[in-house]
Amino acid sequence: MSRICVLRLGHRASRDKRITTHVCLVARALGADECVISGDFDPKIIETVRGVVARWGGRFACHYEENWRRFIAEWKKRGGVVVHLTMYGINLPDIIERIRKDWRSGVDILIIVGAEKVPREVYDMADYNVAIGNQPHSEVAALAIFLDWLFQGAELSKEFENAKYRIIPQQRGKKVIRLLR
Amino acid sequence: MSRICVLRLGHRASRDKRITTHVCLVARALGADECVISGDFDPKIIETVRGVVARWGGRFACHYEENWRRFIAEWKKRGGVVVHLTMYGINLPDIIERIRKDWRSGVDILIIVGAEKVPREVYDMADYNVAIGNQPHSEVAALAIFLDWLFQGAELSKEFENAKYRIIPQQRGKKVIRLLR
Repeated sequence: MSRICVLRLGHRASRDKRITTHVCLVARALGADECVISGDFDPKIIETVRGVVARWGGRFACHYEENWRRFIAEWKKRGGVVVHLTMYGINLPDIIERIRKDWRSGVDILIIVGAEKVPREVYDMADYNVAIGNQPHSEVAALAIFLDWLFQGAELSKEFENAKYRIIPQQRGKKVIRLLR
Repeated sequence: MSRICVLRLGHRASRDKRITTHVCLVARALGADECVISGDFDPKIIETVRGVVARWGGRFACHYEENWRRFIAEWKKRGGVVVHLTMYGINLPDIIERIRKDWRSGVDILIIVGAEKVPREVYDMADYNVAIGNQPHSEVAALAIFLDWLFQGAELSKEFENAKYRIIPQQRGKKVIRLLR
């Protein structure tokens, strides 16, 4: 089974705290297996994400990586492909089928989302530079739509094993059940 | 033609600056017509969004609204429908076709995304409480996927009139052209 990892590049503790948290939670909720944070070391985010996993289930992993260059290089060396989400890349509808083909054939996929400015070498190391529409918007949104297109909506009905809580969808109001293990 | 407006509820200037900015930029990039911010008055975000519109085109409007209750009530009085995005709602795949039907029939759609805690009356005022998967993640991601499903991907190829800049999609690197008017 293909492994999907999200690499958050260039996290700045001062500015990106909430955006990076959203990146990690979107990665988990929409079917990725792992999120790796690079940039400033910010253990609070990792704690927050692990707390969500403890309550809401699944096997999602989250950790910090100091050397992103080596991390990407090793991913490629092990045969994984690298997708960099950037507004300058090829628009998603024009490239998704090729990436889905990689995924279906069991290749691991690393999805890179940058904070402010991404070094040129990331564009060069990526197998695919992919735009989610060629307009400025949000790496959180870009990641969400990329995963949704990759999995073709199936991720929205994903079950999370070992969850303590589960939501029962309601037309109005909130219903959360506590699961016994 | 149906009008799509995003209402960002409960903005806190201290915490939500970047998330609310992303909400507005996603609304614009993915085909909404307008974003209305409620909560703390934070003119810097509105300036940022208007700056993006000036450079990247389109007719997207962004403004502050003090009285969100009245805003929602008036939207409904004028025949518009209200969609509230919440992890507790009906999962998107189970409800999107009904909302698309409203949209195709020309009904205006207000999409509400809250910051931390959304008052119960919002759940009651909404015609649809919609979850983008029933897991905790991000209002930015929820809005992005909702718009993408509503427009079925067509929004990713939207042209923005009166843009000063346009990206020419590249396999590697960045190419932006300056448009003459």
